[in-house]
Amino acid sequence: MDLERSPLALPFPEMPPIAGVTLRVARARYKNWDRADLTYVELAPGTVAAGVFTKNVCCSTEVELGRQSAAQGSGRALVVNAGNSNAFTGYRGREAVEQIMQQVAAHLGCAPHEVFVSSTGVIGVPLPRDKAREGVAAALTAPPCSWEEAALAIATTDTFAKGVTVSAMLGETRVTLNGIIKGSGMIAPDMATMLGYIFTDAAVAPDFLQACLSGANQRTFSCITVDSDTSTSDTVLAFATGKAGNPLISSFEDPGADAFMAAMEDMCRQLAHLVVRDGEGAQKFIAVNVTGAVSDESARIIGLAIANSPLVKTAIAGGDANWGRVVMAVGKAGQPADRDRLSIAFGGVWAARDGLPLADYDEAPVAAHLAGREIDIDVDLGLGMGRATVWTCDLTHGYIAINADYRS
Amino acid sequence: MDLERSPLALPFPEMPPIAGVTLRVARARYKNWDRADLTYVELAPGTVAAGVFTKNVCCSTEVELGRQSAAQGSGRALVVNAGNSNAFTGYRGREAVEQIMQQVAAHLGCAPHEVFVSSTGVIGVPLPRDKAREGVAAALTAPPCSWEEAALAIATTDTFAKGVTVSAMLGETRVTLNGIIKGSGMIAPDMATMLGYIFTDAAVAPDFLQACLSGANQRTFSCITVDSDTSTSDTVLAFATGKAGNPLISSFEDPGADAFMAAMEDMCRQLAHLVVRDGEGAQKFIAVNVTGAVSDESARIIGLAIANSPLVKTAIAGGDANWGRVVMAVGKAGQPADRDRLSIAFGGVWAARDGLPLADYDEAPVAAHLAGREIDIDVDLGLGMGRATVWTCDLTHGYIAINADYRS
Repeated sequence: MDLERSPLALPFPEMPPIAGVTLRVARARYKNWDRADLTYVELAPGTVAAGVFTKNVCCSTEVELGRQSAAQGSGRALVVNAGNSNAFTGYRGREAVEQIMQQVAAHLGCAPHEVFVSSTGVIGVPLPRDKAREGVAAALTAPPCSWEEAALAIATTDTFAKGVTVSAMLGETRVTLNGIIKGSGMIAPDMATMLGYIFTDAAVAPDFLQACLSGANQRTFSCITVDSDTSTSDTVLAFATGKAGNPLISSFEDPGADAFMAAMEDMCRQLAHLVVRDGEGAQKFIAVNVTGAVSDESARIIGLAIANSPLVKTAIAGGDANWGRVVMAVGKAGQPADRDRLSIAFGGVWAARDGLPLADYDEAPVAAHLAGREIDIDVDLGLGMGRATVWTCDLTHGYIAINADYRS
Repeated sequence: MDLERSPLALPFPEMPPIAGVTLRVARARYKNWDRADLTYVELAPGTVAAGVFTKNVCCSTEVELGRQSAAQGSGRALVVNAGNSNAFTGYRGREAVEQIMQQVAAHLGCAPHEVFVSSTGVIGVPLPRDKAREGVAAALTAPPCSWEEAALAIATTDTFAKGVTVSAMLGETRVTLNGIIKGSGMIAPDMATMLGYIFTDAAVAPDFLQACLSGANQRTFSCITVDSDTSTSDTVLAFATGKAGNPLISSFEDPGADAFMAAMEDMCRQLAHLVVRDGEGAQKFIAVNVTGAVSDESARIIGLAIANSPLVKTAIAGGDANWGRVVMAVGKAGQPADRDRLSIAFGGVWAARDGLPLADYDEAPVAAHLAGREIDIDVDLGLGMGRATVWTCDLTHGYIAINADYRS
């Protein structure tokens, strides 16, 4: 099945090198295809690591081991397998991951827990150990490659390569963050998987890196949804080589901490948006802005209820300013809300205020807004100061075509 | 938009009269159509009433007033408006409902709270009081009609009339329960609404009737889903005229109580199934049987996570025995589950057991099962004795067509 490039795709940016980070790719041929499908990232000694992982309780071995490695806080290498998720494969799947960790650890002379492994693709088939061994061996000696080549090698059903670069001044020192991510769709019998990797030359302590990543995750990756389904393999890892030479940041009180946190959140938000922009069948990028909730978390839950509502998503697909469906979604979220204080706008134009449709509501600018690619829905609950923004895409025939019409 | 009759439709049954229940319909012309759209049910003095209502916090005035009336436990009449849901219409919508209650109460010489009102259809437009007044006046003097005519008059976007009749022996006395229901789809800018009405000649106390309805609801209406969206108007009411002459049942200790409860649950299950069978775009009726959970409620939550998963629903639409998507849905439910104890079957054939794909899994009978209209998914968690069955339909291009492609 050949997927058309998403109409919401962004071009791959120019990404500078990150000192202490070397990318290489190889062909493990996990599927019957002729493309790089094994990505190997070598990290300088002293690189610190952090991670956030799926909350799905049926998670993969890679996620279990990745959590343990992230808790130790140091990383020397990352291996990403594309074409086989190794999920639901029991002890045989675990052995394959441990083999990769040991093979790379022996090459680098590091501890196995410093080698992070992710896999994405078909489920229920143990990662073939022979292919993994040969693929890793080839990758270890392959020439360095570009960020775009790595972004393509980790992809499965993505319709475009996804990368983001941001920089920040930490005192006198400019640091760079580069990120690549994959995720979009799930073609039978593959599973949706979002895998994201962030690399920086900043000098930061592992606990601080973890705190930045976890905090940013809560307002970015945890605020996107394509279809409400949660992969068993979702992973975002961050690695900091420290090569930029800034004074080490260990806590949010240290100079430069705020700037680094802001850069990390900017990075995560941009990466998260790229995943939504490649959502299966997506024709429109939707931002749901919830204000006036009793708390930020309540606003996020309400925003997700709206963004996950098939009725809201199909209304947007149809260019229909159907605020009644938004009211319904607010009401079903299980959070405090008062029908008679609710206000709803599309593209900044209020359609309903304080629980009533506006008498002088002008549909023309709303229709023009909904005909575009970037849709804004504002919901004010009129209760408190809680706010959140959630991002999603519309629900179209393309989603059904990808997930029902085609079989592997 | 003309909707094709659902391929899962059942014929309307022969339904006997219920002593003390008289049905009449009229044309209030809430929309520009030439059909009966106002249903009036007159109930004999002494009829007891019970109700279950949407949990959506942005519920309609009809739901708010219906809750209050059900708490009082007596019913003399029911009025159902089709074509206008009167939701999100503030005080003007409330005045229209109160007007109907008063008009019918004056006619019958009863209290206004004994008159139940439901409305379904377009939202954000107050129910027009003139049309309601004339429609009610016409209905009060209309000739009695059949159950099927009433089932058609309460319908909006349903593709077939929905009725169920069951009977039970309470000691020496045969009692009858008749039910009609509407619900299926939501065409912009209408909202999904499930409205169900159950009538019986059994003699039961109001608290007992409420307990039976609430208990049955938990295992029937609360176990169906079409698209996870919850209407602001969902309502199921039960009325018992007592004309069958059985000894009054006041508690679950009384003779006949178990038989009545079983009949009520059978009625509710059949009505609930009819709504799923008219789910928007539905081509397949899916039963998700969850066993081995830590509790019945945990099993229900996991079943709903599976039944609401767009990836599971599209897989079934495509005839794909994609157990990996079922694993994913189990894992995201937020309930206790152990990947390595999970077993999954389609049509009674195990595809995966104890967390591993079956080596000798025979896909042929599974493919044949999935090509049919009635699909069974069995999920055993291997943890405890909790069990639940949840019913849903597949997710097809028809759903997108109904909700995105057409506008009102």
